[in-house]
Amino acid sequence: MTRTFSLTPIGVVHRPDMPDGARSEPGAYFDPFAASVIEIFPQWEAGLARIEEFSHLVVVLFMDRAEPLTPDLLMTRPVEGREDLPPVGLFATRSPRRPNPIGLCYPQLLRRDGRHLHVVGIDAWPGTPVLDIKGYYLRDEQRRDATAPDWLMALWAGHDAARGGPPPLR
Amino acid sequence: MTRTFSLTPIGVVHRPDMPDGARSEPGAYFDPFAASVIEIFPQWEAGLARIEEFSHLVVVLFMDRAEPLTPDLLMTRPVEGREDLPPVGLFATRSPRRPNPIGLCYPQLLRRDGRHLHVVGIDAWPGTPVLDIKGYYLRDEQRRDATAPDWLMALWAGHDAARGGPPPLR
Repeated sequence: MTRTFSLTPIGVVHRPDMPDGARSEPGAYFDPFAASVIEIFPQWEAGLARIEEFSHLVVVLFMDRAEPLTPDLLMTRPVEGREDLPPVGLFATRSPRRPNPIGLCYPQLLRRDGRHLHVVGIDAWPGTPVLDIKGYYLRDEQRRDATAPDWLMALWAGHDAARGGPPPLR
Repeated sequence: MTRTFSLTPIGVVHRPDMPDGARSEPGAYFDPFAASVIEIFPQWEAGLARIEEFSHLVVVLFMDRAEPLTPDLLMTRPVEGREDLPPVGLFATRSPRRPNPIGLCYPQLLRRDGRHLHVVGIDAWPGTPVLDIKGYYLRDEQRRDATAPDWLMALWAGHDAARGGPPPLR
């Protein structure tokens, strides 16, 4: 199947960038509590009515700065340098290097100011194009009986140890 | 911003179709317990390693049969014919008629058979193109403190009454 689909941004992420050089540090990640703003372009503003009644959003991003996927990345090296963890396939990971670089975030919505959505919890470079916004639907996004693989639990335990505790709710 | 992004399917949804005519009935929906199969195309099979250790998946779909979005749909009519509920913007809904018709499902993964993922909980026509697959990450997808708007709670209460109870875990 060689069909392709064409998508166009409906908005853009605004957020503080990392300090110079920090991007290339191992394990560099954004402060999850940095306030971000999702700007929706003017022609779509009417479609935002009552979205401010949701506590959280689903944000579909196009990760436009992800490096290309290469064949050697189909099975990834031990996760984030943890040699004790098994290699896993790319679809089991959140790597931005995917066949289609679509990213998902579920930020807390602080408030809506017209076509600007003030949120906490966006993990994306400033300027990242937004493809879609949805309210966070408890009955869709939340799978209360979901479990995670042992290797992922071990990875998170490592993150918690480095952070000094589990991530807070957001 | 007039950039566009080109995406190509990595797989396809196989599932039982509805009986003839059922599609156009009001409130027609797929049996959430019908077994479905997500076929991932051969060149991506290596990327599925260890995804079978997840209980649930995130499936990113291109809703290729969604009708076009028209300006009158930016604010939708009272939700599903419920005249007692307020009109809401399209981004507050799960309507497939969106600027970019990207759909998200979070099915339970029953088993992996090579590049075929057997799942329960896909809400999409047979043949729908798959853009991405991710393991369901408790720390990303699950927002335990999320709440829903009153109008959505009222809509779900109506669904529960029609069904004779809340939806089971899946």
